[in-house]
Amino acid sequence: MTRYRYYTATTLDGFLADDSDSLDWLFKQHIDEDGPGNTTAFLSDVGVQIMGSTTYLWVLEHERAWLPEIPTVVFTHRDLEPANEHVSFVSGTPADHRGAIESLADGRDVWVMGGGGLAAEFAEAGMLNEVMVSIAPVMLGSGKPLFGGAFDLELQECERNGDFVIARHRVVGPLNVA
Amino acid sequence: MTRYRYYTATTLDGFLADDSDSLDWLFKQHIDEDGPGNTTAFLSDVGVQIMGSTTYLWVLEHERAWLPEIPTVVFTHRDLEPANEHVSFVSGTPADHRGAIESLADGRDVWVMGGGGLAAEFAEAGMLNEVMVSIAPVMLGSGKPLFGGAFDLELQECERNGDFVIARHRVVGPLNVA
Repeated sequence: MTRYRYYTATTLDGFLADDSDSLDWLFKQHIDEDGPGNTTAFLSDVGVQIMGSTTYLWVLEHERAWLPEIPTVVFTHRDLEPANEHVSFVSGTPADHRGAIESLADGRDVWVMGGGGLAAEFAEAGMLNEVMVSIAPVMLGSGKPLFGGAFDLELQECERNGDFVIARHRVVGPLNVA
Repeated sequence: MTRYRYYTATTLDGFLADDSDSLDWLFKQHIDEDGPGNTTAFLSDVGVQIMGSTTYLWVLEHERAWLPEIPTVVFTHRDLEPANEHVSFVSGTPADHRGAIESLADGRDVWVMGGGGLAAEFAEAGMLNEVMVSIAPVMLGSGKPLFGGAFDLELQECERNGDFVIARHRVVGPLNVA
């Protein structure tokens, strides 16, 4: 079964980026590239990556070294140009595209990259199995939120890597406080 | 030297409480009361607790078992009645009351309980040494924010206790991304 994994860095107070979409607070942190939660190990299981248009445009503008090298589905209502042959654009809900995404994944993992609103849409569609965060020792006070909905998780693992707390969670379901 | 410690539970996405100030998402979690980051060990070093009026009124309304048993300074501009002889009310900035707080602490720790705006005011005054959070496996999507400013921390320790990630940080200073 295809695993959907939200894998991202966040500040301790739950922001993916500051109000100007800057990640300067992130790039100054130290991480062991071979340590727990490392990106190389994570990516070795990934067949498709999914992102919203803000994330996509950020990569294009700031970090072209991160241009997609695997099938990449960008959820957007904007009219955008694909950066290369790996990129496709869709609108609508995650469920609308489940079959196509899982066909592209071909049994490998789907990396839900963000933002937090899109990650929550995947959770609401029952298309999010895991949340794995690298928590940087930073408070921003405001910025782009880690997640856009109310959900219960279950902590599976937590470890330190350099300046970060790496915490892997299973997605349980919509928040239940009955 | 008096240590100022912000010790609180938070959701993974950085909220202290939901939009209605409910902690129902918190009380359903499991924690080992003798495990890492436990409250009894923390409190054994605390001489004074500090909170904002929202936190104070929450305790009065919801959890009278938590009524202050040690000197307690409530920062507020409201006209409130003290719940007992341990409670005093102040307005103004943390720095205005530093001498009085440290005199009450008498060499022991100051527990900055929250909310996140007050904790940030203490940090801005140079009166916050530590941020120790118990991170619950919950996303809320919105609610009362963990922190009201942009600061660099340094991770000192991270451990698991029950459903929580316990992460202790030193406060470095205002966020530096130069």
